[in-house]
Order: sequence, then C-alpha cells, then structure tokens
Amino acid sequence: MYSRTELDNIIFRSICRIDFNREPRGLYEPLEYMMSIGGKRLRPRLCLTAFNLFSDNIDENILGPAVALEIFHNFTLLHDDIMDCADTRRGQLTVYKKWNENVAILSGDVMSIMAYQYLAHYNGSRRDRVLEMFSDTAAKVCEGQQYDMEFEDIPFITMDDYMNMIGLKTAVLIACSVGLGAIIAGASDEQTEALYNYAYQLGLAFQITDDYLDTFGNASVFGKKIGGDIRNNKKTWLLVESFRVADHGQRAELDRILAMGEDEAAKKIEAMKEMYQMLGVRTAAIASIEEYHRKAMAALEGKGFSAEQITRLKEFAAELVHREG
Amino acid sequence: MYSRTELDNIIFRSICRIDFNREPRGLYEPLEYMMSIGGKRLRPRLCLTAFNLFSDNIDENILGPAVALEIFHNFTLLHDDIMDCADTRRGQLTVYKKWNENVAILSGDVMSIMAYQYLAHYNGSRRDRVLEMFSDTAAKVCEGQQYDMEFEDIPFITMDDYMNMIGLKTAVLIACSVGLGAIIAGASDEQTEALYNYAYQLGLAFQITDDYLDTFGNASVFGKKIGGDIRNNKKTWLLVESFRVADHGQRAELDRILAMGEDEAAKKIEAMKEMYQMLGVRTAAIASIEEYHRKAMAALEGKGFSAEQITRLKEFAAELVHREG
Repeated sequence: MYSRTELDNIIFRSICRIDFNREPRGLYEPLEYMMSIGGKRLRPRLCLTAFNLFSDNIDENILGPAVALEIFHNFTLLHDDIMDCADTRRGQLTVYKKWNENVAILSGDVMSIMAYQYLAHYNGSRRDRVLEMFSDTAAKVCEGQQYDMEFEDIPFITMDDYMNMIGLKTAVLIACSVGLGAIIAGASDEQTEALYNYAYQLGLAFQITDDYLDTFGNASVFGKKIGGDIRNNKKTWLLVESFRVADHGQRAELDRILAMGEDEAAKKIEAMKEMYQMLGVRTAAIASIEEYHRKAMAALEGKGFSAEQITRLKEFAAELVHREG
Repeated sequence: MYSRTELDNIIFRSICRIDFNREPRGLYEPLEYMMSIGGKRLRPRLCLTAFNLFSDNIDENILGPAVALEIFHNFTLLHDDIMDCADTRRGQLTVYKKWNENVAILSGDVMSIMAYQYLAHYNGSRRDRVLEMFSDTAAKVCEGQQYDMEFEDIPFITMDDYMNMIGLKTAVLIACSVGLGAIIAGASDEQTEALYNYAYQLGLAFQITDDYLDTFGNASVFGKKIGGDIRNNKKTWLLVESFRVADHGQRAELDRILAMGEDEAAKKIEAMKEMYQMLGVRTAAIASIEEYHRKAMAALEGKGFSAEQITRLKEFAAELVHREG
C-alpha cells in the first residue's frame, strides 16, 4: 500500500492534469477557478485509499473516477453557492460572486458532464456498476439538497428528517467514493458492501462534525467564521437535537433566540451556544459522532479484511471525525 | 421499417413511462412538468428513425437513449430559461417562473443525471462509444450556450462566429441523436459518420429556419409571437447576414433600429423586417436553408444506403426545413 502522503501527491497531480484548456474560456475558466479553490480532496482520497487496499496498480482506470468524484463534488458546491447566494467559499469569492449567476449555472452544468467524461477513463469490466453507482449517487445528492432547501421553509424537522437529508446530501457521495475504489480494484461484493457501509456511517459522522465545528470549532483551524449556521437558523444536528430534547419552556427560548436578527448576531451565537451546553446537546453531538464512528468500524468486522487494511481504514476514520476543521 | 406514426407513438409511450415518481416531489414534480410541456420530440424521433433504418428490434436498448436525448434537451431548455429570465415556454409558464430559480437549477441538475441513467439502458457492446458521443455532445451544447450568451454583450459577430455557435448549441445534439441511433443499431462506421454529417447539416438548417420563422413565420403555426428575436436584438442568422452585406449607410440604419426601445416594439419589428427584405437577407436565408438541406442529402451519397433508407431520410429532412413552426 502507498502511504497517505504518496496518495495525496498522486491526487494533487491528477487534479493538476485536468484539461481545462478548452474553449470558450468564459465557460472553462470559472470551472478551473472552482477546482483551484482547493479543499481537502476527501472524495478522491477515499476512492484511492479504498482502491489501494487491494491494488497498487494506480493508473487512469482509478484516477479518472477519483477525479470525477472531485469534479462532481465541486459542481454541487458551485450550484449550492448560487442557491445560497454565497459570496465566499474557503475565503475566496464564489464563482457566483466573482462572475455572475449565469456563468455559475453553465460552468456547473459542464462540470457535471466532465465528471462523467473522467468517470469513463475506467474501461474495465465493471463499467456498468461504476456508472450506475455514480449516477444513483449523483441523483441522491440532488435529492438531499432539495430536502435541505425545503427544510429552510418549515419551522420544525425531526431527527429522522435530518439524518435522511444528510444521508443523501453528504454521506452517499462519501460512500460512493469508497465503493467505486473497491469495485474498480475488483473487490468482492461482500467487501465492497462493507466498505460502502463503513464510509456511509463515516459520512454521517463527518456531517455532524461539520455542524459541531461551525458552532464549537476553532475559527482559525476551521477556516470560516464560527456561528454561521446559528446566524442562518440552519437546521443542524445541534438545533434539531435541541428541539428534540427541550421541554416546552426551553423550546420557547430556542424560538426566541432563532428570532434574533442579524444586528444581534454575536448575542444570538452566544445565547444558542449556551442553550446547546445547557441542554446537553454539545456533549450529545460528540457522543453521536463517536457512535457513527463506531458503526463505521463495526461495518468492517468479520468481512475478511486484513489487519493492515483495518489499520488503514481506522486511521482514515479517526482523521475524519477527530478533525478540527 | 416502422411508419412515422408508429415511431411517434412508440416515443410518446416511452416518455409517458419515464419514472418521475421519485422523492422528494419538490425535486421531481418540476421535472415532470417540464417534460409534459411537450414539443416536437425531434431528438428521440431522429434517434429512432436512424436506428430503424437498420433494425426493427425496438426495445429498451434504443428507447433508453432516445428518451435520454429528450431529457437532456429539456434540461438545457430548463437552465436556458433561467439564464434568459424567460417567463413562458410553448405558451406555458417556465419552471423558473412557476416555481423559482433554485428549483429550476436543481431540477435541471437532476435531469442531466437522469439522462445518463436512461442512456445506460443500452447495454450492448458499443456502450463506450455511446457514452463518449453523448458526453462530448453535452459539453458542446454548454459551449454553444456560452458563446450565445457572450454574443449578447458584443456589438458585432461574424457569420463564422454565428455558424460555430449554432453548430455547438443546436446542430451537434441533432447529429448525436442520429449518430446514437446508428451506433446502437450496429451500423458501419462509414454509414454512421454519413448519418451524423447529414444530421449536423440538417441541424444548421433547422436553426436558421428557427431564426427565419421568428421574424417571417406565421404566428398561429409557430406557436409564439413573431418578432421576439428582433425585440431582443438577438444575433440571428438574419441580423448577422444583414451586417455582413450592408454598406456603411445601411449599417447605420440597422444600428438605429436596434437602438429602438420596447415602447416602439411594433415599429422596430416592421422596420427590421423591411431592412431584411431590402438587403435581400430574407431570400438569402431561404437559400441558405436550402443549401444546408442539400449538403445534408449530399452527405448520404455513395455510402451504400438503400433507396428505402434514402427516401425515409429525405422525408425527414424536408419536414424539418419546410416546416412553418
């Protein structure tokens, strides 16, 4: 198996080699800009890591799909930024803001097509499965985004609603990243399914961690301002859990805080953080993350993975859920 | 070979059978609405007609891709309507207007994914070619739309610019529709290429016809108000040709008409129509359409097509370019 650093370098080079040099520039330049904003490159890393559990033969058959996952992920972010009217991403202007909405729509559209073009670099015998898993996943990500948008307009959602939404919006693509790596490496159906489930649970843990860090994280590590979700009344795990456990009076207090305006942003954030602490929701979040982490590792048990494979997967999981940003 | 009516019925049933019954409804309902708005279903018809030149074995292997083309085409229209801020399409509210922009973006996104899902219903030996042609075409349609948008902001384009843009925005998808039908039917490379070229030339003729009818068509047949392109200063074949042939004084007159506002819409349309007539551009458009029509048929010569096949293709071509709406 390659080391973590070696895999990261391989991914970096693959992304640099993406051919953005197409015309018209007005279409492909924003695309290149979006990809250059960077990020953790989590999905291609997961894809390659899963592949590399079984094979050291890293070539375009696996790199194409790995890159496809990153292109697709960035396409979803590009369109999300329009729908959220977001000005910045990772401290840089969004394509929506730097250019305009029409550019963001169209560059996003061609990104989703490019993802399929890179997916097609895999020409092995399991092409149909690869394509099917990718398309099913891609549709689910859209479904998750739809639920996320619908939730903004209703006052209350259950924890089941929330978990279903993040399952679609976040976890399936993370699971697909691992699934594709395993399928392309020729893993057995049983091990592929186990890895998919491992990654799905990790994906849930990842999103809840994201929600947690937005409120309780370290701004300089997290890379964005703390409290954005609270300011936007976003239905995060923390908020949904709060409403779930709160009594009548506490719900009224939560509603009061939610009604606070942008002019009282700092107060709102502090007030909500205190409620989260007081309701035990901060601690419950950490426990929940650990529970999904545990489920992820449990999904691998008794499936014939070697000690070395388990170690690699354990390290990856820990890194994902114990991060600070 | 099936008759035209039989093929139309097959397509109608295939589109009715598309599974829109997915959740969340908020995502799939606008998609279903868009597909129900209807239209000529030109691209699946071309696909099936091309296929049926060679084979009567019409099943999901060809119907899936045929439907994929229609879904993809409607996805491009859905996003185009956002970018153009269009309120109506075929006399009905656009998804953008009936719902809102975010819905239109996201429903469009999932449509482009569904297109790939339906494309994958073809599981024959030429899957890679089918996927490659579809993705290359899809990217080109986005490129054409980009050029079309860029042209709005520059005062002057050449006829080469215009032809390149409609080649990408319109003709390649029409050519791809025919190409996929031929490939899936197992046609030879030579005949597939000939059919692709036939359809590409027809696609150019189709777009120029569209431009012509918007100004000189019969409103009740055309299905939309006459003169929309003139009101919007759209760089159509007619306008581009006018600037190409006009002398200095005539260009000044064209610019004067273009500068007329919405309050003078009726006058503007009449004035521009007169200029087109006076410059011989109306006649030239008809000649140009016929020239591309001729080139389309010429692309089929000496390629071993039977008389019956040629007759079918000739009828289709004539219908496309001699239409009134």
